[in-house]
Amino acid sequence: MTDAPITPPTSDDGTPVPGNVMRAEIAEQPEVLARVLELGLPQAREAAGVIRGRRPRFVLFAARGTSDHAALYAKYLVEVRLGIPAGLASPSTMTAYGARPDLRDVLVVAVSQSGGSPDLVETAAASRECGATVLAVTNAPESELARVADLHLDVHAGPELAVAATKSYTAELLTLWLAVDAWCGGDARAAHAVPEAARSHVERSAEMATLAQRYRFSDRMLLTARGYSYPTAREAALKLMETSYVAAHAFSGADLLHGPLAMIDGGHPVVAVVPDGVGSAAMRPVLERLLERGLDLAVIGGGASIPFGTVGIELEHGLPEDLSPIVDIVLLQQLALAMATDRGHDPDQPRGLSKVTRTW
Amino acid sequence: MTDAPITPPTSDDGTPVPGNVMRAEIAEQPEVLARVLELGLPQAREAAGVIRGRRPRFVLFAARGTSDHAALYAKYLVEVRLGIPAGLASPSTMTAYGARPDLRDVLVVAVSQSGGSPDLVETAAASRECGATVLAVTNAPESELARVADLHLDVHAGPELAVAATKSYTAELLTLWLAVDAWCGGDARAAHAVPEAARSHVERSAEMATLAQRYRFSDRMLLTARGYSYPTAREAALKLMETSYVAAHAFSGADLLHGPLAMIDGGHPVVAVVPDGVGSAAMRPVLERLLERGLDLAVIGGGASIPFGTVGIELEHGLPEDLSPIVDIVLLQQLALAMATDRGHDPDQPRGLSKVTRTW
Repeated sequence: MTDAPITPPTSDDGTPVPGNVMRAEIAEQPEVLARVLELGLPQAREAAGVIRGRRPRFVLFAARGTSDHAALYAKYLVEVRLGIPAGLASPSTMTAYGARPDLRDVLVVAVSQSGGSPDLVETAAASRECGATVLAVTNAPESELARVADLHLDVHAGPELAVAATKSYTAELLTLWLAVDAWCGGDARAAHAVPEAARSHVERSAEMATLAQRYRFSDRMLLTARGYSYPTAREAALKLMETSYVAAHAFSGADLLHGPLAMIDGGHPVVAVVPDGVGSAAMRPVLERLLERGLDLAVIGGGASIPFGTVGIELEHGLPEDLSPIVDIVLLQQLALAMATDRGHDPDQPRGLSKVTRTW
Repeated sequence: MTDAPITPPTSDDGTPVPGNVMRAEIAEQPEVLARVLELGLPQAREAAGVIRGRRPRFVLFAARGTSDHAALYAKYLVEVRLGIPAGLASPSTMTAYGARPDLRDVLVVAVSQSGGSPDLVETAAASRECGATVLAVTNAPESELARVADLHLDVHAGPELAVAATKSYTAELLTLWLAVDAWCGGDARAAHAVPEAARSHVERSAEMATLAQRYRFSDRMLLTARGYSYPTAREAALKLMETSYVAAHAFSGADLLHGPLAMIDGGHPVVAVVPDGVGSAAMRPVLERLLERGLDLAVIGGGASIPFGTVGIELEHGLPEDLSPIVDIVLLQQLALAMATDRGHDPDQPRGLSKVTRTW
């Protein structure tokens, strides 16, 4: 692991090139994910051993922004692989309303790149007082959040300079996957293909730049997915909003049919994320409805889902469905980057945002 | 309670007037809410007695679309008033992935207007097999969901014909509030002011039509709130999407600062829902950030929050913060209705939608 900060890439005359910090951090992901396997796996196993010993009956995740999508991904893993009910906490119930729920037998997992958000620190501290075991997952082992938790997992992403988080997100996903896998008694073997699969997606930047051309004049977009890939749709929408300023919505395929579908007409693109697996099988009727309505539909998928769609982005990595989100988002990070720079925005410096968001 | 179906209002020559079904159902809400107090309260007390006896340690809500916003509201109530951790279930973990979590000591609350959505029925049935106590909250006591649950609460909204749910939503909110209040041993006294407060909001339709004029040429909107009112922002965004086809986003104030803020510029309106209370106090720094950026901000609020904003919609009902969402949404339903009809859309028949959404 290197601790050297990444120097923002500049052009020959020394001026920063828009998006080059985000581009460099996207490209760094295969290396980061390899580091998570090397350094994070033993730590995940150790933490999982402690957690298993406490036999939690429920898992609550606390996170904001990009890390909230990592939490949502982990919620599916905990429910499906561990058979333990899980939920996403609303930090304001403890921080604003002063709720002090009975959290004995509860594992609270707080996920944050910076580990510095005051509401998460307060939620973690209050959760411990209420009887929970608290696991912090951060990119900052010296952070306040890491300090107040019972257990901490470093995601080993290295310093992240772009305001739009990329490598810390995929590092969080893999760290959470490894922790759940270890908790189940797994051997983590399937995860060893992840860094190489991420590299294959980094190498598809030209393909995503072509898709960005197609979307050049759309000011809104809809992303949809189900199950493990639903967080991918959510995170892609957030990247698009914060870098290209497109009004991107993400809906689970099921919720989409409960209202938001009306908003979409042929004038705005739809992107479905459907890697091969049961979540995507459940998306088939949704895709059929979208196509019946004559919508412009890009399908990022593998296997049987691919015949659908106006545009097909085939997934060839062969990862199991639950690992696919770790690398599929890399394609969509590159789409957001290309859409932002095409429009003359600098995704390294989105208007109105700063890297560490301090919310109370 | 009347069981007579509502006849879609027509013009003198017998043709349907766009939006008149939705308009009639919005106007019916004071009467529906009075019926919930009369007929729903004793049922809520009885169900709460059974639930209290089972001493649940955790509450999971399962719902889709509009009812999911009612579930989110109830999640805050359960956490803040009962001190019991709660979460929103992802039905696909049981229906698509076949998860069978350990749900002993868990109360599962399934909320659905029609009670007919196959994935909710399956989630409810599977939850019972996994040891949960299942409470169904529906507008259809004869429905499959009511049948498979241990306990059922009828929301007494009467037949709802508009595709965009209005009266069933506020009836769900009040029913859930009464159930939680009874579970806490409350006397439900504060709720008796709700029907009259709803009537005062129905009577403000002209004010909302004026606001709709201001937004006539905006094709996207952002709604924000925190705590108990966050579901109001979410539900308002859904109403806007499904009736006026505006790309409406809702974010909690805290999440807004984590990325989506970049998407907003002065060309698109922001609506903040901040009834007087602690949730709104937590919104103050968010409102300040929005105004620093020169955004067009309408503040629907009471008390100390009102000085902010380009447009002020003052809440005068005096309800406590946790009851305010039941009537505040009435204003936003009327905004959505006016925005839809102004644009020549018929909100009674949104494109691409049907009343009962069957998702698996």
